[in-house]
Amino acid sequence: MSELLRAAVLGAGNWGTTLGHLIASNGHDTRLWTRDPAQRDEINQRHTNEQGIRGLKLCPQLRAETDLSAAIEQADLIVMVIPSQAFRAVCRQLMPVVSPRSMILHGTKGLEANSHRRMSEILCEETCVRQLGVVAGPNIAAEIARGKPAGSVVATRFPRLFALGKMALSSAQLRVFESDDVCGVELCGALKNVVAIAAGIADEMAMGDNAKAFLITRGMTEIMRLAFAMGASPATTAGLAGIGDLMVTCASPLSRNHRLGVALARGMRLEEATDSIGMVAEGVYASRSARALAQVHGVEMTLFEHIDRVLHDGVPPAEALALLMGLPTGRDVPGVMRSQARAR
Amino acid sequence: MSELLRAAVLGAGNWGTTLGHLIASNGHDTRLWTRDPAQRDEINQRHTNEQGIRGLKLCPQLRAETDLSAAIEQADLIVMVIPSQAFRAVCRQLMPVVSPRSMILHGTKGLEANSHRRMSEILCEETCVRQLGVVAGPNIAAEIARGKPAGSVVATRFPRLFALGKMALSSAQLRVFESDDVCGVELCGALKNVVAIAAGIADEMAMGDNAKAFLITRGMTEIMRLAFAMGASPATTAGLAGIGDLMVTCASPLSRNHRLGVALARGMRLEEATDSIGMVAEGVYASRSARALAQVHGVEMTLFEHIDRVLHDGVPPAEALALLMGLPTGRDVPGVMRSQARAR
Repeated sequence: MSELLRAAVLGAGNWGTTLGHLIASNGHDTRLWTRDPAQRDEINQRHTNEQGIRGLKLCPQLRAETDLSAAIEQADLIVMVIPSQAFRAVCRQLMPVVSPRSMILHGTKGLEANSHRRMSEILCEETCVRQLGVVAGPNIAAEIARGKPAGSVVATRFPRLFALGKMALSSAQLRVFESDDVCGVELCGALKNVVAIAAGIADEMAMGDNAKAFLITRGMTEIMRLAFAMGASPATTAGLAGIGDLMVTCASPLSRNHRLGVALARGMRLEEATDSIGMVAEGVYASRSARALAQVHGVEMTLFEHIDRVLHDGVPPAEALALLMGLPTGRDVPGVMRSQARAR
Repeated sequence: MSELLRAAVLGAGNWGTTLGHLIASNGHDTRLWTRDPAQRDEINQRHTNEQGIRGLKLCPQLRAETDLSAAIEQADLIVMVIPSQAFRAVCRQLMPVVSPRSMILHGTKGLEANSHRRMSEILCEETCVRQLGVVAGPNIAAEIARGKPAGSVVATRFPRLFALGKMALSSAQLRVFESDDVCGVELCGALKNVVAIAAGIADEMAMGDNAKAFLITRGMTEIMRLAFAMGASPATTAGLAGIGDLMVTCASPLSRNHRLGVALARGMRLEEATDSIGMVAEGVYASRSARALAQVHGVEMTLFEHIDRVLHDGVPPAEALALLMGLPTGRDVPGVMRSQARAR
């Protein structure tokens, strides 16, 4: 199956630009939407986007557009890569120009502050589009832009949307896997950032690889519990969008959230640490949301709670990690997984 | 609950010596069995074991013993840390000196070549001991010996044995978690070494963090499928002995199996690579066993098959990894997990 699409990528940041470049390189007619006319001109004339992804020569067929309606006109597939806290505003702009036939994938890893909404929920609240999905996985943009191999997951309940996403994205370099668990993939993508902050703290404190693996495993089982309580499949946490992405985010010193953890462990306050990184890391919001969602759904998420206290209540990172390492021990594997195993 | 035990640790290699030191440091009367009188004298007189773990000052209360019967005399708990290919021979030595009341944990991560037996199966075949268990997790010995924090799993169906294991091992530094899935923990411990070889190849080929996470996630789902087919809980792969240990083994350039992968990717043949490491990596046997077990149980284990071909059929590592990255894509999450999720 090989079909040429018209695709619109909304958001010309690091990941949006990379996805736009990738889809255009696969031969599809691709528009990249940005608000910034200077960025549009740079992309269209010089085929670079230095602010989005430094040093990458973009596919010359990738067209930037500042008019949202023109960008999505006749698009078979819309890919939204808008920061989580700006996602709702863009959905409101989209409302008058999309139709129930529109198909939207998003690649945003985060939850909306205060509402704790997933991005697909915001799309449902603000637009008439229902054919929705999410693309995620262990996908460091800089590696993909340089042509290194990777695997991604496209999660949607709509087979046609999956087929379009796979056609747009997949190549010899990027392998696209299938899932129908939109909620699980979204939660994994958002919450892994909090675990990456913990991993950054552990790395800076030189706690060792054993302790880091302990914290990451614990974080993953907490995500699994919450995801299950929210109707997702705990199995998703075992896939590319779960442990795959978590591993990359926690290992990579390039990850913003990991860098935030390092900065906090060096004694910076949240504001200083954020300034030193140059932008807010998604985990700063996600830890608030995780703590709230854990309470609503009655799920124990000790690691998330402790990292949230470090971020927002001024608890020293060393104290939080010592507490985490010292908690009473119990069953290795979370109840949701065990009860399933018992049921067979 | 705090009780002083008499413990016997069999095997004075890297991990056995570390566990013996740890248990003795917790105040328990601990014997460490070694075949080598010179090593025994070094441990008892100088409180070091330079061949086992360089530079560590051992707990002076740790007593080495070359007589197996004396080592385990009146032991409440026996901890076996014998290389997988020597495990059966030591079990045969144990047979006349143990009783059905003996309690044995083992800390060996491997499967027996040719028979593909797990260590607990060998213990059952060769001795009358049935109160068996396994200790595993993301536990790099060098870190634990230096007092860095970590978490371990003790898996057994016998609550008293779990309690003894926890008493012996746990401290402010080492947290001990509970599981009843002996088979799952054993399989994870043995099979992760094959994935670590793949990770070493990927690292040496500079494939990037995305591809490495892709391979590790794929490896873990293959372990999950086989473990499920063999009666284990797929949940175990999500715990410390599963993804936790896998992460540490694949990340650590100290891991023998990772180093083997690096050496193979540099173009060495298996014999040269093994010589350069100075000992056989467990993954060399485990890949054979995985391939055989996958066939017996009708489970698809493509990653294991390709790594086995690299190790034993002379397939170039670059070719195997290119094939692995290029396989047709399908569902992100393995069937065993999905079917459970559907059942709820």
